[in-house]
Amino acid sequence: MSKARGRVTLPSQSGFLTETKEIMEKWGADALRDSDGTKLDQELKELDAKIYTTYFVARGHNDFAREHMDECQQMLLMSKRNLATSTELTIDFLDGYFREQVVPDYRHDPHTWWEVIDRTTGEVLPVSCWQVDTQKHLVLLEQAIPFHEYTVSFFVYAIWDPTQMYNHITNDWGDKPHEIPFDVRLPHSGRFATDYLTSWLKENPDTDVVRFTTFFYHFTLVFNEEAREKFVDWFGYGATVSIQAFEEFEAEYGYALRPEDIVDNGYYNTAFRVPTKAYLDYMDFIQRFVAKKAKELVDITHAAGKEAMMFLGDNWIGTEPYGPYFREIGMDAVVGSVGGGATLRLISDIPHVKYTEGRFLPYFFPDTFYEGNDPCVEAVENWLSARRALMRSPLDRIGYGGYLSLAYQFPKFIDYIAQVTEEFRTIYDNVKGKRPYCGLKVAVLNAWGRLRSWQTHMVAHALWYKQTYSYFGVLEALSGAAVDVSFLSFQDIRTGGIPADVDVILNVGDAGTAFSGGEEWLDPKLVTAIRQWVYGGGAFLGIGEPSAIHHQGRFFQLADVLGVDKELGYTLSTDKYFHTALSSHFITADAKDAFCFGESQHNIYALSRQTEILEYSDNEVHLAAHPYGKGRGVYISGLPYSHENTRLLMRAMYYAAHKEEAFRRWHTDNLFCEVHAYPETGKYAIVNNSNDTQSTVFYDGNGEATQVTLKPCQILWK
Amino acid sequence: MSKARGRVTLPSQSGFLTETKEIMEKWGADALRDSDGTKLDQELKELDAKIYTTYFVARGHNDFAREHMDECQQMLLMSKRNLATSTELTIDFLDGYFREQVVPDYRHDPHTWWEVIDRTTGEVLPVSCWQVDTQKHLVLLEQAIPFHEYTVSFFVYAIWDPTQMYNHITNDWGDKPHEIPFDVRLPHSGRFATDYLTSWLKENPDTDVVRFTTFFYHFTLVFNEEAREKFVDWFGYGATVSIQAFEEFEAEYGYALRPEDIVDNGYYNTAFRVPTKAYLDYMDFIQRFVAKKAKELVDITHAAGKEAMMFLGDNWIGTEPYGPYFREIGMDAVVGSVGGGATLRLISDIPHVKYTEGRFLPYFFPDTFYEGNDPCVEAVENWLSARRALMRSPLDRIGYGGYLSLAYQFPKFIDYIAQVTEEFRTIYDNVKGKRPYCGLKVAVLNAWGRLRSWQTHMVAHALWYKQTYSYFGVLEALSGAAVDVSFLSFQDIRTGGIPADVDVILNVGDAGTAFSGGEEWLDPKLVTAIRQWVYGGGAFLGIGEPSAIHHQGRFFQLADVLGVDKELGYTLSTDKYFHTALSSHFITADAKDAFCFGESQHNIYALSRQTEILEYSDNEVHLAAHPYGKGRGVYISGLPYSHENTRLLMRAMYYAAHKEEAFRRWHTDNLFCEVHAYPETGKYAIVNNSNDTQSTVFYDGNGEATQVTLKPCQILWK
Repeated sequence: MSKARGRVTLPSQSGFLTETKEIMEKWGADALRDSDGTKLDQELKELDAKIYTTYFVARGHNDFAREHMDECQQMLLMSKRNLATSTELTIDFLDGYFREQVVPDYRHDPHTWWEVIDRTTGEVLPVSCWQVDTQKHLVLLEQAIPFHEYTVSFFVYAIWDPTQMYNHITNDWGDKPHEIPFDVRLPHSGRFATDYLTSWLKENPDTDVVRFTTFFYHFTLVFNEEAREKFVDWFGYGATVSIQAFEEFEAEYGYALRPEDIVDNGYYNTAFRVPTKAYLDYMDFIQRFVAKKAKELVDITHAAGKEAMMFLGDNWIGTEPYGPYFREIGMDAVVGSVGGGATLRLISDIPHVKYTEGRFLPYFFPDTFYEGNDPCVEAVENWLSARRALMRSPLDRIGYGGYLSLAYQFPKFIDYIAQVTEEFRTIYDNVKGKRPYCGLKVAVLNAWGRLRSWQTHMVAHALWYKQTYSYFGVLEALSGAAVDVSFLSFQDIRTGGIPADVDVILNVGDAGTAFSGGEEWLDPKLVTAIRQWVYGGGAFLGIGEPSAIHHQGRFFQLADVLGVDKELGYTLSTDKYFHTALSSHFITADAKDAFCFGESQHNIYALSRQTEILEYSDNEVHLAAHPYGKGRGVYISGLPYSHENTRLLMRAMYYAAHKEEAFRRWHTDNLFCEVHAYPETGKYAIVNNSNDTQSTVFYDGNGEATQVTLKPCQILWK
Repeated sequence: MSKARGRVTLPSQSGFLTETKEIMEKWGADALRDSDGTKLDQELKELDAKIYTTYFVARGHNDFAREHMDECQQMLLMSKRNLATSTELTIDFLDGYFREQVVPDYRHDPHTWWEVIDRTTGEVLPVSCWQVDTQKHLVLLEQAIPFHEYTVSFFVYAIWDPTQMYNHITNDWGDKPHEIPFDVRLPHSGRFATDYLTSWLKENPDTDVVRFTTFFYHFTLVFNEEAREKFVDWFGYGATVSIQAFEEFEAEYGYALRPEDIVDNGYYNTAFRVPTKAYLDYMDFIQRFVAKKAKELVDITHAAGKEAMMFLGDNWIGTEPYGPYFREIGMDAVVGSVGGGATLRLISDIPHVKYTEGRFLPYFFPDTFYEGNDPCVEAVENWLSARRALMRSPLDRIGYGGYLSLAYQFPKFIDYIAQVTEEFRTIYDNVKGKRPYCGLKVAVLNAWGRLRSWQTHMVAHALWYKQTYSYFGVLEALSGAAVDVSFLSFQDIRTGGIPADVDVILNVGDAGTAFSGGEEWLDPKLVTAIRQWVYGGGAFLGIGEPSAIHHQGRFFQLADVLGVDKELGYTLSTDKYFHTALSSHFITADAKDAFCFGESQHNIYALSRQTEILEYSDNEVHLAAHPYGKGRGVYISGLPYSHENTRLLMRAMYYAAHKEEAFRRWHTDNLFCEVHAYPETGKYAIVNNSNDTQSTVFYDGNGEATQVTLKPCQILWK
């Protein structure tokens, strides 16, 4: 074993002992894991490595599940919208759903638990107006209003675990049994979960780490009638719903949830929706249950002398690591997938665990590992984007997943990862436990706050969306920047004010979303708290449609702070004289080429001469700053991730915070490079974030400049 | 005089007799007018031509006005927004206004008539909370909430007529007296207006036509502290407001108007705002007064044996020619400025007058008529764009304005206009009184309906705005198209249903504006009326954000009809599989190059497989059609005016109306050409709308095709 062994997890598979040992040696791996579709055989388990074993709590036990179909997991679904063309309307409420995934719950009286809603008016129909044909799965309306649209919100049983369903369909697994998810809230299932784990632990003495994948409730994932994805929300509580949960909720909270509290116009309370009080109550209710139940399993695991690790994904709902109850679960570790800097920080910043682990890309699957392709390309990109974030907040371990036998056929890749693992260990040794130099304390303000740290503008984990990349870029830029990042909710400000040490508040997103804030901005307490704070010297940076809701003559409720507002057509009659961009400014000092604001916002205009317009094109403002008392507001119309935009954001934040003079401490003028300093140890690293040679002026902590040249991807430790 | 004399009005000026006669001859002019800054001398008035004389009713009589400053016109203005940083706040409410234009009204108690509003909450402050310092023109608040914004809505006297003010400042007229506008609602002014006209008519025996410029109330035009335009709304009732009017309104309607009913968050109820009940009541109140009072002046004019002509502009508020009271005024004629097809139709479609006259461009001013410039370029463009509309609905007369002496220096221009006037008379003879062939009956649906016929998406008359050109293009396209165009309000549909003969309803504009409809779409009666009508075979064409307001899971309330909706972020979790544009379709059959949707709307997506996507790019739909029962919906994301887009609109309307088979009647395949047929007389014209030679297949009323070639700008009469 080399000296630098450790902190690396390797996937392996049966009959691959020699090669596994060889790669373990090369990468310094000290843990082995199974993956979807692979198992570790006894010889592998006897190697000098920790053994991780994937464990499913609430599926994969069909013998039990089939005997307790009344304990299947449930969901509340909304039918399609159905147009009445006469006073009679028949609604095929399952139309559009995948009948192998869900079946209607007729065990509980639909007239008690379902809702039929007139979507033209929003009214709930009296139950006397409709009947259910349980043979044909139809809802029959008799007093419909012609040319109104109607929906049915109905309970189903979910009879197929969505992750297994996805793998099953994608890999064409034929008649392999469908794994039935059961609900541990119900008595037999709850008992089964603990009993089975107890016996499983006995039967798996070689396992060191139980890799829970995950606990009880899958994020919302619903398929359509063609067995294709219909709805996916990585944050969704859709699969936590049940009649039992509704009843227990009412008993505890003193009010009954309506189906519409969950169905939410068919939006199902995605993370983009400003959450309602009922939904927040419901989430809290679920989180407390999940934490309590998960703690039972973790305690059993610990009692068996093993560690409990949680996969951040799949059945993770209710375990949110930044939520108030995560600590109580007592997890040892969390492992998750790393797509870039923000997804790395999502894992590495998790509190209350002994260690975190990131699964890096590429996954060892044939979509990347095929003849003629170079898997190093994806690996380099993944590593460079994630490495910035590692320098700020290191994971404790890194790992890979998939078929090792496949990766083994690409020796150049094996060698490259050997370099990566070595570099990771060096970073870890230099960085772990040391507080990096942070020039600013930045708070991202939205409806979710800390709960969804590093998780804004995500739909399905790390997927690209046209509507999100111009905002998610802000998180990606922040993930590796020399600033201290926190997440603040509107409620935090209402109850506790703005934390004294925050330099810059960021509000990022489209109008009406949870990330911008929507109706939250009608609250004078929130608006005045921020105004007062900025006026006294604070910094407010709005991206997209910050503080936007149309009210009292303004669209941006903090237009007075930002110095810009959005033209909705109502102020076209008001002359707008301010459309000349300043030729030079602190914020744009490093901008050489055209700006890239991504999807951008349109029709933004400056309110007065005080607004410093920094970019004006196509008859609209895309970048501006504005004095406000002793503080400043800055507006950016969109900010996709790039090195250029990272620099723009940094300058915008320093300017907003009136800390321009501190900008050139631990700094490089070349925007492809960054500096990470660790004052406690006196160490610092100049990092080339690109795969090209870079030359840069480097400024140390006193602003003293020297010239350095960095090789592609190089980290220069001093 | 040549045989083809007539229907043309010439501006003239003192000491220009010979040249005037020469141009009269060349252009066949039969009327002479004065202009701003020119007078006709006696010799000119004796020529064989009707004499128009500009007449101002409510300004230009400072001797009278100065004796009755309590009868000055009034306005209600909103101060800037003022941020309170403590509980005391001093508001310089005139800040930002031009103090030569307006002075505060302290004659009437501010505590009775003004409002101080907390714009952070929308609450009106009790009058006990504020005082007015009438010496310093300040409002003093004592119990302000720190970091709330406050505005003062206050009455002023308007002491300078805005049109004279504009000319005075623009032309640097120095100490020329400011013309004070007086309010004919008040006793002395009302009497003065009639008395003065009576004597003026006696003193101007040579005048044949009194060109009222205009009546009593100017459209809203307010200047800022730098004497530049601050607010302009060609439709605005800002200058109709007075204490007297408020008192009379309350007496008649039984409720008092609040200042906010007029001030409207500082938007002042521009035509883009969905009108409130109070504002509609107020408009009606003003319109009835204006019609009654204007009728008095028209009656006096007629009694003197002269004609009454109204200029469509300046002090035109309350005379709206498409309003319910215009007929009662008894005007003989209306004259207005023609910027293109839509502004021509705005004049030529006016009912209840003996004749209409369009003033064409260019205006004979030095901005066009300077050495080295060819005024023909603007003239050709203006004529070609307006001519399409003339072919559908002719003006009775055309004319020009400005300094004839200036135009006279451009002989090529003089000759070109001679051609134009000749062509106009030929068109008129062939077209006037004949109903042109219309393949479809089209209704433009918005909050204003008939009242603002041909006036949608206008701010200041015919000016270009980034936010409007993508919608105004629809009107411009329709103005010369072989369809019958009407204007319908939401209220029309609610009270009278959809007229039986309408083929296509168009809803065009941005969400929340009067042109799209905003909250009107929450009315189930409206939504169901349109759904039912389309379902039964009607056609709904939405452009921009039609029927848009977020409600019950939809942004477009007629998304079911259109087959598309707009992604607001709430349905990102819902998979969208429909993004393949059809390679060929009736609507896009003539599209050769890239589409131009102007500013366009973004994030539009197709709801189902039934939606026929016709253009998809940048991850969004810009053009789509959708079956709905026996009818169809069509969506276009924006439609600036062009020949290509005119064709696209025509095809979209024919398709939506299920009349594809009738599309090739009285039609040319070359989209730079159009056909106008007059079945009563058997005549038809094939028109080349371009300044290039065009070759086209021409289809007659039976769809029989022949090939024709047209010279630049040619009209081929058959």
